[in-house]
Amino acid sequence: MDNKVKDCADSAAKLVMAAKGEIKADLVIKNAKYLNVFTGEVNSGDIAICGGKIAGIGSYSGIEEIDVGGSGIFTAGLCDGHMHIESTQLTPEEFAVCCMPYGTSVVIADPHEIVNVCGIDGARYMARAAARTPLEVKLMLPSCVPSTAFETSGAVIGADEIAKEIKDPLFYGLGEMMNYPGVVNCDSSTLQKIAASACCGKVVDGHSPSLTGKELAAYISTGIKTDHECATWQEAAERVSMGMYVHLRHGSASHELAKLAPAVNGYNYRRFLLCTDDRHADDLITEGHINNALRVAVKCGIPAAQAVAMATLNAAECYNLKGKGAIAPGYDADLALFDNLTDFNCKLAIKGGKVVAKDGKALFKPVKMFDKCVKDTVHMREVTPDNFIIKLNGTHARVMGIEGGSLVTKNTVCEVASCGGDVDIKGTDILKVAVVERHHTTGNIGLGLIKGYGLKGGAIAISVGHDSHNITAIGDDNVALARAVNELKRIGGGMALVNGDKVYSHPLEVAGLMSGASAKEHVAASHDLAEKAYAMGVDRQFDAFITLSFLSLAVIPELRVTDRGLFDVNKFAFTDINA
Amino acid sequence: MDNKVKDCADSAAKLVMAAKGEIKADLVIKNAKYLNVFTGEVNSGDIAICGGKIAGIGSYSGIEEIDVGGSGIFTAGLCDGHMHIESTQLTPEEFAVCCMPYGTSVVIADPHEIVNVCGIDGARYMARAAARTPLEVKLMLPSCVPSTAFETSGAVIGADEIAKEIKDPLFYGLGEMMNYPGVVNCDSSTLQKIAASACCGKVVDGHSPSLTGKELAAYISTGIKTDHECATWQEAAERVSMGMYVHLRHGSASHELAKLAPAVNGYNYRRFLLCTDDRHADDLITEGHINNALRVAVKCGIPAAQAVAMATLNAAECYNLKGKGAIAPGYDADLALFDNLTDFNCKLAIKGGKVVAKDGKALFKPVKMFDKCVKDTVHMREVTPDNFIIKLNGTHARVMGIEGGSLVTKNTVCEVASCGGDVDIKGTDILKVAVVERHHTTGNIGLGLIKGYGLKGGAIAISVGHDSHNITAIGDDNVALARAVNELKRIGGGMALVNGDKVYSHPLEVAGLMSGASAKEHVAASHDLAEKAYAMGVDRQFDAFITLSFLSLAVIPELRVTDRGLFDVNKFAFTDINA
Repeated sequence: MDNKVKDCADSAAKLVMAAKGEIKADLVIKNAKYLNVFTGEVNSGDIAICGGKIAGIGSYSGIEEIDVGGSGIFTAGLCDGHMHIESTQLTPEEFAVCCMPYGTSVVIADPHEIVNVCGIDGARYMARAAARTPLEVKLMLPSCVPSTAFETSGAVIGADEIAKEIKDPLFYGLGEMMNYPGVVNCDSSTLQKIAASACCGKVVDGHSPSLTGKELAAYISTGIKTDHECATWQEAAERVSMGMYVHLRHGSASHELAKLAPAVNGYNYRRFLLCTDDRHADDLITEGHINNALRVAVKCGIPAAQAVAMATLNAAECYNLKGKGAIAPGYDADLALFDNLTDFNCKLAIKGGKVVAKDGKALFKPVKMFDKCVKDTVHMREVTPDNFIIKLNGTHARVMGIEGGSLVTKNTVCEVASCGGDVDIKGTDILKVAVVERHHTTGNIGLGLIKGYGLKGGAIAISVGHDSHNITAIGDDNVALARAVNELKRIGGGMALVNGDKVYSHPLEVAGLMSGASAKEHVAASHDLAEKAYAMGVDRQFDAFITLSFLSLAVIPELRVTDRGLFDVNKFAFTDINA
Repeated sequence: MDNKVKDCADSAAKLVMAAKGEIKADLVIKNAKYLNVFTGEVNSGDIAICGGKIAGIGSYSGIEEIDVGGSGIFTAGLCDGHMHIESTQLTPEEFAVCCMPYGTSVVIADPHEIVNVCGIDGARYMARAAARTPLEVKLMLPSCVPSTAFETSGAVIGADEIAKEIKDPLFYGLGEMMNYPGVVNCDSSTLQKIAASACCGKVVDGHSPSLTGKELAAYISTGIKTDHECATWQEAAERVSMGMYVHLRHGSASHELAKLAPAVNGYNYRRFLLCTDDRHADDLITEGHINNALRVAVKCGIPAAQAVAMATLNAAECYNLKGKGAIAPGYDADLALFDNLTDFNCKLAIKGGKVVAKDGKALFKPVKMFDKCVKDTVHMREVTPDNFIIKLNGTHARVMGIEGGSLVTKNTVCEVASCGGDVDIKGTDILKVAVVERHHTTGNIGLGLIKGYGLKGGAIAISVGHDSHNITAIGDDNVALARAVNELKRIGGGMALVNGDKVYSHPLEVAGLMSGASAKEHVAASHDLAEKAYAMGVDRQFDAFITLSFLSLAVIPELRVTDRGLFDVNKFAFTDINA
């Protein structure tokens, strides 16, 4: 018998004795009320914790005791069922500092963004960084790197590499399979990625917006288990009826939870989870995390006992998180104390039996790591103003039209003047948009025109560009565009704004995606830059920087720019700017 | 990438095409109604099956089609959440022939009885025999061999062997941990067995009759996940509230389902399963199997959608049965068609996409195997009448009192006459009871006295004796006792009855536990023997043979006989027959 088994049996003996009250528990939460997700009832008692696990609930005394005097209600630590930590633009360490005071204990994280920049090394960095905190980050192996064949990403991960990597215990499963057309059309590489995961018994996350009927059945039949992309409650109900777990999403840009709530009932609630998917740092620090999703769920009429099960037990069942998701003997001592089951303000967070946050403040302070593999990820030559010249053959051009509140761009045709071999956009509401490849020094620059954004007298640029994270820039002046892009090269990725001669920037030095600063500093710096952009005329209906991050997303209609050129999503082919 | 992944991807492609209706499915059940366990609703459509899996439900055509014309309701194949196949006294092959026409598709089987006789080889035999049938038998590794230290079993399986064997994919988990005093008292070998299972991520079944409060918390804290021994709905509710799955049992001797039903509600139903534990062949062939438990559950007021979930989806979740428990795309095509959700008469059973039973008849006929390792398991010398002499010191003796409908025996003191160095029981209602060791030719014979059974003029014996399965005999005559026991030696185990000069027997030639005959033949033969026993005066309140099988069970109060002697369960020690 190996020592691991012996140690495990010794720990069990201690837990048994603590459960019986024969020895003092390490920690006892005296006079606690808690939501029992097995019964849906609020129970009370002293919660005895020993060796990081719950020994029992009843009348106990401990070496350490915290008397909560019957105030508030404990739940098990909350789980975000699907998210990309990179979207917070915070490092995993900083994200943990922000989310744990809200009662988050586990996140199912798909490091899709960083792996598109740095390859699998990016995922390993995320794991190592998260390991410096008490937060449990269960990584999914990104399935779609790159997301499309129409742009240049930092890494390419094929079916063979997926088959190899998915066996690594680091990965809990296969990340969201966004290539739903590939699945439904039997693309062999796509099906092999799924099969490789199924063969080693791992969960496969889905992403199947708008699929329905037989195509949805086809998608699910491959073993894809979850979806977080439902836009209507009918879509959610259809997915649940076909055996999927559905994540009710309440992120920053996307929050369908309220729309989907009517799909939940007392019989099927076990098949729903909560997630944020993409959550910006400012929303995180002002509104909260999964506790905020719980607040919204309960406000939408989902009974608290069902909503809490979604954020705890259901997530544990869906993702095979052993020992997670409930307050009961033998379960991990991951607990969150909320003021009540309506407001979900977290007063105390306990992880593995240790108090990790109190009254909204994390009690741990991880030393951040900056792995070589995720630093200096902007690999490109300096650009020059000439790189941004757009020479039209005639008087009309294809122009992207954008509107606030939607990721969809319009494919419009406008009359555009030219002068000296370049478009002449001065005095119009049309701007240049450029996507500059920044991974392999290819020199690729895709150019296009955009209207509606509203910047005057300069340029704005960011190195976060879904999903390949090249540099996207918008401007009305070639010199300013070149300056903005070169500033991002200089600072190793981030956000830049050029106003006349002035250059402002804020680095996202980790893979060009995440800031090494604290959440507060990062939010302040990016707000400051954004305000400067609004002062230059950017329409306030848009998030000044994040709007740029989606202009290269070649899977959402209608017109996009990637580093390889202008792309017509409806035709699923590159197109000519000359209309 | 290995070929398994490639093959799996190829199968997925075929399933995807079938789901889309682009190719004909292998089999389509036209115009089917089915209970959707994700929604609790009855849905309808054509169920398309391809490569043994469900492709989709909608409008489909298949290479083969079965039109059920909207009659009846399909559920996923049923799962018995906990049982001992040996208790049917049928081989695994014959058991499959009997249970699959009732819609059973998977059984979680603890081969506790045969492993007590033959060791791990017995479990392997069960697996090989079951593999000759379409029934999926998921074996649990017996945790308590022997069950107590007070009798001689065929095998002893310690913590080291458990730690080794539990890694074998043959075993789905650790079988019911009956040694609950050992758990609660931190017996290191017991805790190591549980720890070894936990360390390789396998389920541990429980067995904790009457434990409550802190002792129950202690038992559960070790990671034990299920219990099927609840006697009251309050016990069931307490276990569910502490995170256990509770099996609602409806076997032959024990059927608590009706008593436990009040513990189930719409919120917690996900934490309940159905099981039979021990089901005799005659009940199996006359009443049914898990479909009968469903019938009882619904009669007790449990909504059909909840009851069916217990027998399908809940079992799949509790035991990590991937692809089981629902009718949905990608799930295994294990289906049962019932007349309705009240009577649960099974009309058609499909396993892995093949029709395996129709109108109560199995369509497969396995060729039974008789492994050497499970044959000739009666290892003992012939006994003589002198072996059954009971010499008292005085006029009073300790006597077991038995009553119908209870396994509990009374520890009574009676005046018993002696004559010629042996007790003289002629003309009284007291009989001799003997337990003869039959595994290792030790010559051990435990002797006692019993009253209430009612046999006159002979002896009765059986080689099924929980849990070590030595030979138990009752009689009023030393010659008859010796004959009955020697008859079992001659036939390699089974049941025997001696009436004066006549010897009748029915072999249980597989490990002395199971008959090689068909269920019908076996039931007829055992009924015939039992009737002969009743004709000799056995009180009809007792099952003539099965009553003997529990007389050596040294964990149930009050007085027992094992091959090592008379045992006082309340004192948990051997005792003297002289009172």
